[in-house]
Amino acid sequence: MILEIVTISVKPGLEAEFEAGVAKAVPAFQTSKGCHGLELQRSHETPNRYFLFVRWESVEAHTVDFRGSPQFQEWRSCVGAFFESPPQVEHVATALHGFGGTIQS
Amino acid sequence: MILEIVTISVKPGLEAEFEAGVAKAVPAFQTSKGCHGLELQRSHETPNRYFLFVRWESVEAHTVDFRGSPQFQEWRSCVGAFFESPPQVEHVATALHGFGGTIQS
Repeated sequence: MILEIVTISVKPGLEAEFEAGVAKAVPAFQTSKGCHGLELQRSHETPNRYFLFVRWESVEAHTVDFRGSPQFQEWRSCVGAFFESPPQVEHVATALHGFGGTIQS
Repeated sequence: MILEIVTISVKPGLEAEFEAGVAKAVPAFQTSKGCHGLELQRSHETPNRYFLFVRWESVEAHTVDFRGSPQFQEWRSCVGAFFESPPQVEHVATALHGFGGTIQS
């Protein structure tokens, strides 16, 4: 299992609209092959900065299957207008599970 | 509940030593008041880049209680030598839980 971490800076003042856009886009991820979860986190220090966590079966499920699908267009149409700059995308895998819950399940 | 996200660049070639250091430091977090979980993720694109996720009851449980405790010194003694640059720390809270598992539980 792979976790996609997307760092998103939202145009200041449009945070509520952005969050509503993410909520509207949830079904696009739920209906994507190999997508196992989505969660949006908001920065305490920089309130217009968000981290979107998306769980995928593999990197390719995201970069190939999802990005080539109508669901990706739907995602961008829901939130693209609120981006202050291009989001930064990184994929991570669990190196060590210390204790407590895990994002990778 | 608050999630601390620490972005860590490790000196290339010392990734295994860094991971062993994090494993050694797990009890320091487990015995810290208000700490509810720890997980280490490694970047797919940049293998010497890691994300440490630590769950805390509040921002202050991390920034005040933990940083003023002997456990913080223990953490730094286990891993500090492997940092390529000062880690970047950010605290986030759940803005939206779409579907699937959550890091914040």
